[in-house]
Amino acid sequence: MKEEMDVSKTLPFDLSTLEKLTQTFETPFHIYDEQAIRDNARRFLRAFDWIPFKQYFAVKATPNPYIMKILKEEGIGADCSSMAELVLADRVGLTGAEIVFSSNNTPADEYRKARELGVTINLDDISHIDFLDREAGLPELLSFRCNPGSCIRGKGNTIIGAPEEAKFGLTRDQIFQAYALAQKKGVERFGMHTMVVSNELDMENLVQTAQVMFDLAAELSHKLSICLEFINLGGGVGIPYHPEQQPVNLEKWAESVQRLYEKILLPLGMKNPTTLATECGRVITGPYGYLVSRVLHKKAIYKDYVGLDASMADLMRPGLYGAYHHITVLGKEEVPHDFCYDVTGGLCENNDKFATDRMLPPIEVGDLLVIHDTGAHGQAMGFNYNGKLRPKELLLKPDGSVQMIRRAETLEDLFATLDFKGV
Amino acid sequence: MKEEMDVSKTLPFDLSTLEKLTQTFETPFHIYDEQAIRDNARRFLRAFDWIPFKQYFAVKATPNPYIMKILKEEGIGADCSSMAELVLADRVGLTGAEIVFSSNNTPADEYRKARELGVTINLDDISHIDFLDREAGLPELLSFRCNPGSCIRGKGNTIIGAPEEAKFGLTRDQIFQAYALAQKKGVERFGMHTMVVSNELDMENLVQTAQVMFDLAAELSHKLSICLEFINLGGGVGIPYHPEQQPVNLEKWAESVQRLYEKILLPLGMKNPTTLATECGRVITGPYGYLVSRVLHKKAIYKDYVGLDASMADLMRPGLYGAYHHITVLGKEEVPHDFCYDVTGGLCENNDKFATDRMLPPIEVGDLLVIHDTGAHGQAMGFNYNGKLRPKELLLKPDGSVQMIRRAETLEDLFATLDFKGV
Repeated sequence: MKEEMDVSKTLPFDLSTLEKLTQTFETPFHIYDEQAIRDNARRFLRAFDWIPFKQYFAVKATPNPYIMKILKEEGIGADCSSMAELVLADRVGLTGAEIVFSSNNTPADEYRKARELGVTINLDDISHIDFLDREAGLPELLSFRCNPGSCIRGKGNTIIGAPEEAKFGLTRDQIFQAYALAQKKGVERFGMHTMVVSNELDMENLVQTAQVMFDLAAELSHKLSICLEFINLGGGVGIPYHPEQQPVNLEKWAESVQRLYEKILLPLGMKNPTTLATECGRVITGPYGYLVSRVLHKKAIYKDYVGLDASMADLMRPGLYGAYHHITVLGKEEVPHDFCYDVTGGLCENNDKFATDRMLPPIEVGDLLVIHDTGAHGQAMGFNYNGKLRPKELLLKPDGSVQMIRRAETLEDLFATLDFKGV
Repeated sequence: MKEEMDVSKTLPFDLSTLEKLTQTFETPFHIYDEQAIRDNARRFLRAFDWIPFKQYFAVKATPNPYIMKILKEEGIGADCSSMAELVLADRVGLTGAEIVFSSNNTPADEYRKARELGVTINLDDISHIDFLDREAGLPELLSFRCNPGSCIRGKGNTIIGAPEEAKFGLTRDQIFQAYALAQKKGVERFGMHTMVVSNELDMENLVQTAQVMFDLAAELSHKLSICLEFINLGGGVGIPYHPEQQPVNLEKWAESVQRLYEKILLPLGMKNPTTLATECGRVITGPYGYLVSRVLHKKAIYKDYVGLDASMADLMRPGLYGAYHHITVLGKEEVPHDFCYDVTGGLCENNDKFATDRMLPPIEVGDLLVIHDTGAHGQAMGFNYNGKLRPKELLLKPDGSVQMIRRAETLEDLFATLDFKGV
């Protein structure tokens, strides 16, 4: 089955710019468009300027200090879920309330680090109240991750799962027990968190998350007299990987959330307005990153193949999830997409394919291909299987200059944990 | 749906041995049983002692110098498919014909390295004859990877694909063109290679591979007067991840191959008998490696969860393929498996599960769990998503002592390619 004719996606560079760039920086690399990230961040925050609002960048999406610093400058904090991400956020200069620690199955040392940095801690399970208390002490402000189970219509997927099948969060019943227990243990300030969708493009499902959380907040207020200082709606805002898909209209989403906020939360008559928070990753940087790769080989057997100098080491999503990533053959944007290719990497693994049965213009060895929407969950997910090395990351700055913000791995990096002395 | 009652798998250690070991080496770690690897390697080679035979270990399965050296001592070479694997094989002291370079979509520098090391080169595509000639020069001995397409009954899978859908090898027609072209270009000695199954437990399918290759060898002999010096039957021999599955009977497999060899190849009356080769990975080390991990948390929400200190960083196969890995709760082998758990890691990714709906004995925080059959494609496939660090590898030696043969990753390793100067 052939995919239908691709429509185009725009690029912040053209063939000659990139060809020149590859004289300095060999392919493959991810390149991120700083101005587009900044513009998008501002638009995102503007959409929620009707309320105290904080967006925490899901660090796992693009754990690069330069990206985190750009977002920090725009007023975006960090959503961390591991020791490495806490340390990164700290090293970028984010502090305390600019960081939320939303992890699951959390080791004790990570809670200790989170307490040391004074970040907002969001517990994934009711049993973690005692665990945190014992291992690192309870903070003054505590948040719980709610898993609303089957009362959310979310269809789920392999990334996040259907809520009632997902390992994350507390059940609705446990939420009430957890706040009561934390109150009893002396915690005085509270937030609440959920994350029930992933890569969701349907605004209605995103709005539904707010509805469920606001209703729960109202119930908490009535039953336990808890005034939540913040409600973190999580992330999960999707991006249009397919060019035919429409992005989420951030302003309309925010307006719908505002209406629910005014209808459900305002009547509670809280002293201070509840801060809204999100911890988006994909929608913050995803569309503004590009994997640039050169065609190494063409191959015609039972099907036609184009082999790139990139592989699953550079981008796992197609291999791991069967995810679609749009591909532009640079300089051939206007050429009819009459040829059907599998676009592959060089791993000894047949799922090392960036595209299967993709209609593209005729491709030659040496062509530069751009794989779109790698600004999130791209470099971060690569592995070293088959001894493949992970790629460098470049930053396209607003003045048009390009800076390397992560070097490519070397064999020395790959072998760093090995011991050759005994062989 | 609950999985059916597990039957057991044996272990080369018990709870008290492992508890003691974890005082020196913190969990999680992979541990490999040297004696079992050696015994299995000997058995494998013995099964094929009726003919000149060479087994090349698929380095990607367990790219650790100690493992490669143990196999070298047993007479097993290396099957490499990347620069890193060639360099590893070289550093372990393997030379020339002890190494076969079977890659696809191969970069020029890897062919140059292969030529420099004098290894046996196996081309994945007809176009690589000219490419290799231009970039590194043609060797005296050359091999081609055959993709028999739909004439193989193999049902395929996500790892290797159905042959006619897989990116690997030359078509049957191209095989004849390729040898003719190589002959014309002065290549004088030839081998042939295929790899059409992965993790195959059905001996008939493994034997069928030999049949197809021997028939093709006979045809090559008749049409082009080519006497193949070797036929590499590839790997793909499966292992019983499920305890109810039966391992491939290596002796019966070898006997069936022998019958075909005697029926098809011997009558060709070649001067020297054709060497048979395999490039197995999984069946060589897979069953003799164990991921040892400790229970960090238990969680009861809509389902019951057991959270380990290991994650997809330590073992990707369940998350990537939905693969089954057997789990033993140490010290509770004889306790009824009456409890149903999802066994998870701590990634912010719902497919970070080692088992779903697995019947196990009652598990407590602190229990040691052994995840079986991680001796191949275990540590090698881990990624650093979410900032998770990859684990150490230990070697259980024949005398019962344990040596660390790969240290655990550190945050410094993880951040090695980053640049903190500008932030």
